[in-house]
Amino acid sequence: MANITIIGAGNMGAAIAAVAVAGGNTVQVLARDASKAAAANPSANAGAIGDPVTGDIVVLALPYGAALEVIAELGSQLDGKILVDISNPVDFSTFDSLVVPADGSAAREIAKRVPSAVVLKAFNTNFAATLHTGTVGDATTTVIVAGDDADAKAALIGAIAGSGISAIDGGSLGRARELEALGFLQLTLAAGEKTSWTSGFALAK
Amino acid sequence: MANITIIGAGNMGAAIAAVAVAGGNTVQVLARDASKAAAANPSANAGAIGDPVTGDIVVLALPYGAALEVIAELGSQLDGKILVDISNPVDFSTFDSLVVPADGSAAREIAKRVPSAVVLKAFNTNFAATLHTGTVGDATTTVIVAGDDADAKAALIGAIAGSGISAIDGGSLGRARELEALGFLQLTLAAGEKTSWTSGFALAK
Repeated sequence: MANITIIGAGNMGAAIAAVAVAGGNTVQVLARDASKAAAANPSANAGAIGDPVTGDIVVLALPYGAALEVIAELGSQLDGKILVDISNPVDFSTFDSLVVPADGSAAREIAKRVPSAVVLKAFNTNFAATLHTGTVGDATTTVIVAGDDADAKAALIGAIAGSGISAIDGGSLGRARELEALGFLQLTLAAGEKTSWTSGFALAK
Repeated sequence: MANITIIGAGNMGAAIAAVAVAGGNTVQVLARDASKAAAANPSANAGAIGDPVTGDIVVLALPYGAALEVIAELGSQLDGKILVDISNPVDFSTFDSLVVPADGSAAREIAKRVPSAVVLKAFNTNFAATLHTGTVGDATTTVIVAGDDADAKAALIGAIAGSGISAIDGGSLGRARELEALGFLQLTLAAGEKTSWTSGFALAK
């Protein structure tokens, strides 16, 4: 069990809050509008961005651009935190590439900006619906966690354990690049109706 | 039904030959050693690399480096062909990145070298075993086909239809970059025993 703060109360924030609550963790949801944070999950503590961050694990359940803004605002509040980037930094003007460097990732950009935190990539290959249902097609939903700190990865994977979905160590933070490619591909396939917004890629055992 | 030449008689060449034969196509397998080509599939025509290429669809069932060598050797024999790149151009010295440009792909590099052919990316996200069994976990194996020529994609997708596995249009040749990232990620996850060499990522409907 862990103390988890989720910043963002959109579809993904609410879905990750549900997973975190189901996993038996203490959960805080922060959003620009505290009433939206309160609506995300009745079992979570709610507040506004700017309120004290109570979690040891902080999930940025925000689009990439908003995540950059929020980490700048929170500053030293993120020192020592496990900071989880879930973004798919798609260039929505073209829907044909990402806005981060071709040899990098959103997670790497965030890690550069918050060197006092341990950054993990996770949840970006999971559509929100699959976090709620626990399944992708007939398979159990799997959260792939990438990062350079084994203890931090184990903490996040442990926090997800017991929620009914799977979580695995997907390798170093360098793999965030491939996870973001996978997330982007999955978005294009869903937009093209080759998969659905309630399914996507499942990782078989 | 199509005329398909598969160059390469390793695990992937044999698996793709099995799919192509099952789909009712006329299939030729070429390899350095014609006896290995003959062993790949008893229902396929066999020959050595350098023999006339009879297929309209030519699948390079070779590692990336070998594919580059073979296309240089075959030269004008590939004019007008639908050329299918299945490679995952992993830097095996590090197992941490690909050997192609970060903003490109093996498929794009091959397309540059054979401008007289129509290049498609396909099969690189499918482990050989899943082409034989037709399943990834409980899901039907799906071949994702990327390319810039809709007719060529339809020809390959049609050739796979009826084989018992699925094939979908995965977008432009630009998506080869994401497919290669997915293929690489899948290799790292299998090597790390987070998935198996007989499963991997399934695309749910």
